[in-house]
Amino acid sequence: MINYPNKKKTCAHHEIRDNYMGRGMSLEDDLNKSNTYYLECERAVIHKKPIPIQIVKVDYPMRSAAKITEAYYKTPSTTDYNGIYRGKAIDFEAKETKSKTSFPLKNIHPHQIQHLERVLRHGGIGFVIIRFTYYDETYLVDADYMIQQFHAATHKSIPYADIKENGSLIRQGYTPRLRYLDNVDELYFKEGSFQ
Amino acid sequence: MINYPNKKKTCAHHEIRDNYMGRGMSLEDDLNKSNTYYLECERAVIHKKPIPIQIVKVDYPMRSAAKITEAYYKTPSTTDYNGIYRGKAIDFEAKETKSKTSFPLKNIHPHQIQHLERVLRHGGIGFVIIRFTYYDETYLVDADYMIQQFHAATHKSIPYADIKENGSLIRQGYTPRLRYLDNVDELYFKEGSFQ
Repeated sequence: MINYPNKKKTCAHHEIRDNYMGRGMSLEDDLNKSNTYYLECERAVIHKKPIPIQIVKVDYPMRSAAKITEAYYKTPSTTDYNGIYRGKAIDFEAKETKSKTSFPLKNIHPHQIQHLERVLRHGGIGFVIIRFTYYDETYLVDADYMIQQFHAATHKSIPYADIKENGSLIRQGYTPRLRYLDNVDELYFKEGSFQ
Repeated sequence: MINYPNKKKTCAHHEIRDNYMGRGMSLEDDLNKSNTYYLECERAVIHKKPIPIQIVKVDYPMRSAAKITEAYYKTPSTTDYNGIYRGKAIDFEAKETKSKTSFPLKNIHPHQIQHLERVLRHGGIGFVIIRFTYYDETYLVDADYMIQQFHAATHKSIPYADIKENGSLIRQGYTPRLRYLDNVDELYFKEGSFQ
């Protein structure tokens, strides 16, 4: 294809500042900023999907500014984030919990688990990013593991220790806030992985 | 991965009925129904993204039903549809026009063209689906061609004859309404294509 001029930034990582611990920033905010960074430096094209809304009533006070006056949140049928990385379709959900001991599985909708199952069947990379705000730790957890846990009838949450053992701790920095693509490289693009 | 039981339908096409011409159905409606069909028969996992909305005010008359009372449409920063097909990331925009003679390029936002450029650079399949409602004809037009046309300073629309020549006519049927993945097979998965 034709390469149109675009301002390509270098993907240099800025080291973690001692006074930056990420506290107070939401996981969504951190991921959006990280995705913008990855987008601008041409490492990946990953976006958060808009929140699904059922629009009921719209006013048109002016032609140029339609005003929605009645709308409701809908249950999401897919995950929140998707895009392309190193030629592969990438798809994930992100959740944070205040619990010190476990991640409650009710945080994930059954539709989202079903969607991740489909992503894997169709050859995409799927995972869930889980943050334990109490520890200020964020883990990338492979979709396969999450799906198994979700279908295990014996428990309604995943112990923190199990996430720590089965997940991959995401390094936090200044830019990008969450270097989660490094974890993706490690988990899905190493020699011998499914690639 | 573990294969969980799922109701897999066969992907048999139902032949075009003489009395079904698709007229009166919006392109979006046709695509949503086609995507649901492709999803259920496990051929692809492609969804329309929700419309981006800026939420300003939310009332909570009851805990279970938050009511949005002030919100505005935002300009989309990406295309409307994306997903995974045959292991590849797929990404497209869909537009219809009533014009008999040409497709007006103002129908596509510059952000969407920029997004399609990124999709191609990162190894995804990108295109635009254009319907001429007057002729009841729907074309799949490769992103590369659309990007070139968009950047050509000489014109503000693409003549119908050029779309006819450079696009790929999508067969319309009963289920799926639009067999656009057949066009994708033909254009992107044939021997000698970029795959």
